[in-house]
Amino acid sequence: MGAPRGSGAVPRFWQGQTPKTTLDPALAGDLCAMFSEIEGVGGPGEDPSRGYTRSAWTAQDLALRDWFARRAGSLGLRVGTDSAGNQWAWWDSPHGPRTAVTCGSHLDSVPSGGAFDGPLGVISSLAAVASLQRRGLTPSCPLAIVNFSDEEGARFGIACVGSRVLTGVLDAERALGLVDAEGREAREILREAGQDLSAYGADPELLASIATHIELHVEQGRALADKGAPVGVATHIWPHGRWRIDIGGEANHAGTTPMGDRDDALVAAAALILRVREIALARGARLTVGRLGIEPGATNVIPSRVRLWVDARAGDSATLDAALADLAEWSPLNESLTPATSFDEDVRERLCAASTRVLGAATAEGTAAGHDSGILQDAGVPCGMIFVRNATGFSHTPREYATLADCTAGAAVLVETLEERTRAR
Amino acid sequence: MGAPRGSGAVPRFWQGQTPKTTLDPALAGDLCAMFSEIEGVGGPGEDPSRGYTRSAWTAQDLALRDWFARRAGSLGLRVGTDSAGNQWAWWDSPHGPRTAVTCGSHLDSVPSGGAFDGPLGVISSLAAVASLQRRGLTPSCPLAIVNFSDEEGARFGIACVGSRVLTGVLDAERALGLVDAEGREAREILREAGQDLSAYGADPELLASIATHIELHVEQGRALADKGAPVGVATHIWPHGRWRIDIGGEANHAGTTPMGDRDDALVAAAALILRVREIALARGARLTVGRLGIEPGATNVIPSRVRLWVDARAGDSATLDAALADLAEWSPLNESLTPATSFDEDVRERLCAASTRVLGAATAEGTAAGHDSGILQDAGVPCGMIFVRNATGFSHTPREYATLADCTAGAAVLVETLEERTRAR
Repeated sequence: MGAPRGSGAVPRFWQGQTPKTTLDPALAGDLCAMFSEIEGVGGPGEDPSRGYTRSAWTAQDLALRDWFARRAGSLGLRVGTDSAGNQWAWWDSPHGPRTAVTCGSHLDSVPSGGAFDGPLGVISSLAAVASLQRRGLTPSCPLAIVNFSDEEGARFGIACVGSRVLTGVLDAERALGLVDAEGREAREILREAGQDLSAYGADPELLASIATHIELHVEQGRALADKGAPVGVATHIWPHGRWRIDIGGEANHAGTTPMGDRDDALVAAAALILRVREIALARGARLTVGRLGIEPGATNVIPSRVRLWVDARAGDSATLDAALADLAEWSPLNESLTPATSFDEDVRERLCAASTRVLGAATAEGTAAGHDSGILQDAGVPCGMIFVRNATGFSHTPREYATLADCTAGAAVLVETLEERTRAR
Repeated sequence: MGAPRGSGAVPRFWQGQTPKTTLDPALAGDLCAMFSEIEGVGGPGEDPSRGYTRSAWTAQDLALRDWFARRAGSLGLRVGTDSAGNQWAWWDSPHGPRTAVTCGSHLDSVPSGGAFDGPLGVISSLAAVASLQRRGLTPSCPLAIVNFSDEEGARFGIACVGSRVLTGVLDAERALGLVDAEGREAREILREAGQDLSAYGADPELLASIATHIELHVEQGRALADKGAPVGVATHIWPHGRWRIDIGGEANHAGTTPMGDRDDALVAAAALILRVREIALARGARLTVGRLGIEPGATNVIPSRVRLWVDARAGDSATLDAALADLAEWSPLNESLTPATSFDEDVRERLCAASTRVLGAATAEGTAAGHDSGILQDAGVPCGMIFVRNATGFSHTPREYATLADCTAGAAVLVETLEERTRAR
């Protein structure tokens, strides 16, 4: 772990003088410039521990979309929005099935999130196109950069809305009917943001035009840090889902009810929370209880009901199933489940080859986090992912961090891959 | 346990035909009549599991205050409100120090509470006065029935507001500045309810006029049921208080953070909740965690902080202190503490003697619940309490229940005590 683990006050490499990197100073300079340009949009200001708050379709997100359109426009790309509200910046137009090479990520964030989760992939893609243009390359096929809308799902509760609607796995009417914490419907919010909702929904033709999609993303754990590798290539996304468990008890007076006469739902829930952790350790799965509700929830009343959620993930479906089976006596109710996604083998091999050419080595790695690329891969689009080492291993907090050297290394692997995929064949 | 422990659908003895009791049919009839009269005020209607909701100063509470004034007026009592908003119904006026004999309880309830907690004491007092009048008694000293305001503290978070303000242990300005869940100040609510706030505060003269105060209350546990006794006499109120504990952790992604790298505040809290129960059992104390808050509280984020409250009570201060000492490593922060209250010995002996005369036996019993009588006792007013057996042992839920026979027995002990205390000496 190279970076401090203190109060979140990680130095941001784009503030102050641009550090020197030997790998590709021009690429590094572009990364610094672009992170600096969007720093003020939902950024932490003087208090780094505040993090970045850029929820989908808020003023911050719309400002980032405008920035993306301007930045891509300045590279001569043609910017448009697809039928699901995702932005695409095209170098040449899409033509015919399975011809385009695309890359990108998302610009929205969780509340008080990090600077890299999302923007690093979009910024690297813009920097990669600039790098190809500096080399005088003219791609032999269409090349596009995408900014997927509402990847985090922080506002409406469903992640990857843009890619799910585009692929049709999320019904357009259901997506438009989602309601945020203030009770406002997505339909109203998207309309106010200027989205044309008359054709809102899937676009199979656009998806069919993509030969290869590559997403660069900051790593969300510390596997690369542990391996000493600056960049990794994704093998697969773990199967993951969430389950709800209700625990019953009997409300009674906290003072007058003897300990032996109690049926305390929170005591039962506490035992379950510890058991969940034991199961995770025993099975090699990742199980988390991050949210629970207590009824009646008064200091002097014995809890009569606890409702809690288990976020469950594992490297493979058998492990996940076994962990869930261990919880069977609590009758967990499944609320969502995403099966394992294996990224396209050909794309993965090309990414590993590019990593070896640029960095001398390739590190393959699975991930327990969901991504738009996983949604596209499941819809039949050949996808791959490049991970950039997370120096702290933290994710969805302001402590998430990647060094400029590692970001540049990741972007260089992206440039190399795009160059190889778009070279005249 | 004689009564059903099902869905809360305990039959209410005042509905339908009045059952026969051999002890005192007229007294029993009055109890039935009065419970029936107030059944519709904040009552459960057709669904007994809904319970009774009569929060202080709501329309329901004001309707009960009106009912109290009418009922007491029909007994020829002079009804007024003291400087702290409590209602007093006087048979003769207070005159001189330590001459009055008073009784009563409260009419407000917790949300979805039982029918007895509070009203049983007020109704029994009204029925007792009627019984004395039927006997042709003219008390040799002033006798009053009190309806204390806001005993439950369900609306503003502080229990026994009426008696605390009357005795001065709660500052009048602080009481008027309390805010309910809707953000409304007690000052505004009391003014709307027609209370004169110009002299709101303590009344030492009124308190000094009381020679004996007796509160009849439904038992809040099952001690009397276990002993097979219909009525008990309070010895003391347990020391009790609440403590807050904050547990820190580190927020991180629920999917990508290996189990071994986690600092999960909820896992630590779960271990503490189980430890709290162990301590209670080992020390013979009663410790409850009924409320906790989680940050950030998202399904897919490892909790970074848990704040929880421990409601702690014990039969004596040494036991309570020992239990709290066992929690010392979690640095509990005391938010409130009420020391043990011993009821007046002379009053207790008189209550026991009355119980023996009426029922052939007396059962002494401590209580872990706070009461207005404890507040008055601590302020120097000689107080005693009569408990009526709770058939289910449940309190602050619709399952709380007392039989008509037991209620009549308790009221008969109250009649006997009032008769003895107000007889010409």
